[in-house]
Amino acid sequence: MKVFGLEEIKRVLPKLDLFPLIKQGFKAYSSGLTVVPPVGEMIFDDPPGDVHIKYGYIKGDEYYVIKIASGFYGDTNLGISPSQGGVMLLFDQKTGQEVAILADECYLTNVRTAVAGGICAEILAPKKIDCIGVIGTGVQARMQVAYLSGVTDCRSLKVWGRSDKGVKKYIEDMSLDGWDIDKASTTDDIAGSCDLIITATASKSPLLKKNKLKKGTHITALGSDSPGKQELEEGIFEIADLIVADSIVQCVERGEISHGIKNKIIDQSDITELGNIIGTDNTVRCGEGQITVADLTGVAVQDIQIAKAVYEACERLD
Amino acid sequence: MKVFGLEEIKRVLPKLDLFPLIKQGFKAYSSGLTVVPPVGEMIFDDPPGDVHIKYGYIKGDEYYVIKIASGFYGDTNLGISPSQGGVMLLFDQKTGQEVAILADECYLTNVRTAVAGGICAEILAPKKIDCIGVIGTGVQARMQVAYLSGVTDCRSLKVWGRSDKGVKKYIEDMSLDGWDIDKASTTDDIAGSCDLIITATASKSPLLKKNKLKKGTHITALGSDSPGKQELEEGIFEIADLIVADSIVQCVERGEISHGIKNKIIDQSDITELGNIIGTDNTVRCGEGQITVADLTGVAVQDIQIAKAVYEACERLD
Repeated sequence: MKVFGLEEIKRVLPKLDLFPLIKQGFKAYSSGLTVVPPVGEMIFDDPPGDVHIKYGYIKGDEYYVIKIASGFYGDTNLGISPSQGGVMLLFDQKTGQEVAILADECYLTNVRTAVAGGICAEILAPKKIDCIGVIGTGVQARMQVAYLSGVTDCRSLKVWGRSDKGVKKYIEDMSLDGWDIDKASTTDDIAGSCDLIITATASKSPLLKKNKLKKGTHITALGSDSPGKQELEEGIFEIADLIVADSIVQCVERGEISHGIKNKIIDQSDITELGNIIGTDNTVRCGEGQITVADLTGVAVQDIQIAKAVYEACERLD
Repeated sequence: MKVFGLEEIKRVLPKLDLFPLIKQGFKAYSSGLTVVPPVGEMIFDDPPGDVHIKYGYIKGDEYYVIKIASGFYGDTNLGISPSQGGVMLLFDQKTGQEVAILADECYLTNVRTAVAGGICAEILAPKKIDCIGVIGTGVQARMQVAYLSGVTDCRSLKVWGRSDKGVKKYIEDMSLDGWDIDKASTTDDIAGSCDLIITATASKSPLLKKNKLKKGTHITALGSDSPGKQELEEGIFEIADLIVADSIVQCVERGEISHGIKNKIIDQSDITELGNIIGTDNTVRCGEGQITVADLTGVAVQDIQIAKAVYEACERLD
């Protein structure tokens, strides 16, 4: 079994055209051309952490992929810092033999999540974006923005985070990448002034409220991937003109949408699956005044697509 | 991340005392000291195969373990042979960081399954065994017998298999290991003449019937690990004095026991969990005339125990 580490993975990534690859994956998923079993999950209490196992295959493809990704939130008493970990494994679909392991330390999960956010922005965000709002200051709060730079010309950001130190560091780092960036005093400030809002926290209670949201806003929520996590007030689903899920079955179980369903604000028939609107051109956002929400829980088909492409590119390295 | 291959794994295995290790795992499992989520499963049609993901941790332990094991049944039209594959991965329970991968090609799964069979025989088989019956001629049909040699002095075997060629090869190979071995003409022949019977096939319809079974027989059934597989006629549960499951929750879902439950021959309260009778001495088999059945679906705690021990022994290799 071949093992490729983060250094090799980062070398090949810039050569890959990830948007079409991941789009193709979502389309295959929503067309029933994939086998994607329910997400495996393991929860840890002390120190707190969670592990997700996402796996599946595209029918008739060469490989199946199993991805393990963890988030541990650290224990400062024991001197343990928060950390992300993970690997992606490729196996031969005809024999079950292991082909390769990508020891990506969760990096590819972060990339494919950022690409999915970029795809949502491409399809769903308003044409004219004056300011992008970001709730959260972690890895995804950075990568989502990085992968937006090919989707919009807007370079104006507003950020909100729980910790002043985190916000300060975020502003410093992102300014270096050419973003014109302000600190938001509240999440209402973000709601009232941004056209494209990204929520990227592990929050367990709603951060973004419906009352101050402007007409014409698109929200991509990607923090909630376990029952119990929540970033959006469920009332936002009430005023949303379009609700998109990366996977309806997963979002109903573990995404933001689960709170909308549980509180009977929406039902499953109100949700559109991302793979079904990719490639349908610009007919999705019917009016500039609409509010749209994309709920991303992360689907194994994204891991399958990125793992295959990265593995094959690593094989071609000298 | 460290990678250890089959060669290193086979070098360290003889140094490990696996019976106490696996017993300790079953006891921890049945005492609620483990977290073992439901088995992840992926089914393939063409060529047929299945992949099982078993994972979990013992609370307060150093690692969590994720095990991937596959069985693919080949496609002679495409020149693809049947194969088993798999790996075991160890991660740090406090940080989620990957520690090691054991590229065991399913070997450790076979070993820990054989050890579980040995433990069942130790606890449940009659004191005096005249003949051991084996249904199946594959890897487990061999390894179960090998791991019985420390449990009983009996060296008399009877084997039944679907293919004459398979039976012939089995008899040739096992004779070399000192077993006195006969071919059974039918599974009824096994039922009528053996005191300890092992069923180790991927059969989808019952092979071992209840009518010819002798009083005082113990059966260990380990082929059924997916809904749809079945080796024992469900009527056997009707005449069994004791039914043992490696994991009640798993056996009810995917073991032989599932057929007994579905056909309303037994209910969950009729089942004893293996970890609850380990270390309870010889009080389990109350009379030599009893019929006992052990249903083994394979529990992640076996993988956890063997992976930890093998990894630590590999680390000590020169």
